[in-house]
Amino acid sequence: MVALAGGGGGAKLAHGLLRALPPGALTVLVNTADDFTIHGLHVSPDLDTVLYTLAGLANPQTGWGLAGDTYATLEMLARYGAADTWFQIGDRDFATHIFRTQRLQAGEPLSAVTAALASALGVPATLLPMTDTPVATVVETDAGHLAFQDYFVRRHHSDPVRGLTFAGIAEAQPPLGLGPALAEADAVVFCPSNPLVSIGPILAVPGIRDRIAGCRAPRVAVSPIVGGKALRGPADQMLATLGHEVSAAGVARIYAGLIDGMVIDEADAALAPQIADLGMRVAVAPTVMHDEADRAALAEVVLGFCATLLGEAEA
Amino acid sequence: MVALAGGGGGAKLAHGLLRALPPGALTVLVNTADDFTIHGLHVSPDLDTVLYTLAGLANPQTGWGLAGDTYATLEMLARYGAADTWFQIGDRDFATHIFRTQRLQAGEPLSAVTAALASALGVPATLLPMTDTPVATVVETDAGHLAFQDYFVRRHHSDPVRGLTFAGIAEAQPPLGLGPALAEADAVVFCPSNPLVSIGPILAVPGIRDRIAGCRAPRVAVSPIVGGKALRGPADQMLATLGHEVSAAGVARIYAGLIDGMVIDEADAALAPQIADLGMRVAVAPTVMHDEADRAALAEVVLGFCATLLGEAEA
Repeated sequence: MVALAGGGGGAKLAHGLLRALPPGALTVLVNTADDFTIHGLHVSPDLDTVLYTLAGLANPQTGWGLAGDTYATLEMLARYGAADTWFQIGDRDFATHIFRTQRLQAGEPLSAVTAALASALGVPATLLPMTDTPVATVVETDAGHLAFQDYFVRRHHSDPVRGLTFAGIAEAQPPLGLGPALAEADAVVFCPSNPLVSIGPILAVPGIRDRIAGCRAPRVAVSPIVGGKALRGPADQMLATLGHEVSAAGVARIYAGLIDGMVIDEADAALAPQIADLGMRVAVAPTVMHDEADRAALAEVVLGFCATLLGEAEA
Repeated sequence: MVALAGGGGGAKLAHGLLRALPPGALTVLVNTADDFTIHGLHVSPDLDTVLYTLAGLANPQTGWGLAGDTYATLEMLARYGAADTWFQIGDRDFATHIFRTQRLQAGEPLSAVTAALASALGVPATLLPMTDTPVATVVETDAGHLAFQDYFVRRHHSDPVRGLTFAGIAEAQPPLGLGPALAEADAVVFCPSNPLVSIGPILAVPGIRDRIAGCRAPRVAVSPIVGGKALRGPADQMLATLGHEVSAAGVARIYAGLIDGMVIDEADAALAPQIADLGMRVAVAPTVMHDEADRAALAEVVLGFCATLLGEAEA
């Protein structure tokens, strides 16, 4: 199975899928367009959230970082007057960025460093950065063009988003491991991550959209919009200001032509007919993940839905 | 006053001098030949020891690092299988290296970064790296040529030293601040640091030896060898294998022609006549610094000795 994910809800469902599948069966294709450099270190927020979540080390309170992490390094950096101490990095989290930066500077590709990190933490899944070359989401706002973390963390995603560009996307290439993973996949899952700035950049890497479009396996998306709201983050405001309907149906329209099925929350059951009209199957289920049991339950729904679609396709 | 120092004992005396002098009166010229890169970060062990010691933040147990520092980052790096986790770096210590590395990569000279660190920690002294360009002590041993920290930390300075070279020394230039500091100085103090690998590289920077030789102020060294032994570290073994006498007199011979006076420990009082025969004055005093009171007492001895020499020179 191949799952596309950003951080947050995407990582949670990926974790549910990991638990439900045999070891080694899951490949997670992760957004890297919000990667950035801070304190001279390369930080990959979505890769880290997926890594920590799949390793069972994520901080359940914050949605980012490691559970129980401490902040001695960051506090000392603040004492030195370092710039950008608004971005919270724990001591153990710093180790991830230090390790990654050193390996990248030594010439190793991001995909190899990511594999080393996942292996070291005993994650029985393949984590694939969407590309090895730098891509940077630039957010157009009334305050000007903002780097993604500037928009997202520093300014608390409070600026209305007028446009999005992914700098470097034209030169990006899909990871080498994606072709084989898609060829063997029984399903492709679009996790409930922001369709515009998490899944969007992944699909914008030249070649990835076409490969998914041409994939024989059923492709299923889980809506990150429930009852007209994003569970976390600015997806709802961003959809609105960029002219999309702020609903599971709006998300389905973004993915239309690329997916075979959509999982929507029970709260959105009434949207099922109009989503079906887009040419996809719809599954209605509880999709809000408060705890690990919720992740497991949603993973079972997704796997069952995929199996149904696969059975129908083969019939 | 200008003090030349490595880490350890040198930093302790510098701290004593700092406390005894008016704010801003002390310039410490620090060895950087044991600087190295680890985890992709630029580490300046002697600068850090002097910085932390003068800021009152040094770990009194270890002689390096920050008091009460924690090790979460290093433990996580070890979990990732990072190389070189034998070099102990605490979480707050990592902040120093991260801050410095980022500034250096942005093109700032080491001297400017050092000044920023000292200022941030409220150190009322000028810390001058011996040079802004990279110099690396290479230790010739029976096991081959070793990088300094490899010899010193990883192999616990257990290899007999057959030779020392300072790679990059020919291109090194003295810091810009040294000339004015020496011109204004009432005294130059060679702190009780290793004469071969701490004070040695400082004097080997083209121009520094000549400037000190031509300085009008009295120049005084404090012996790091007491009773034929180094208080800490491998200075005694290193002196022996490189053909020097392992005594305060042996150290005095290394500095002969460059200093006007030598402070030796009471345990070495019998060496005073032969040191005086080298053409320098000798002061005998307790030189072992167990606590801050010892640092203050030795600083008073050194300042008194310098004042005496200055008075004689002016008379």
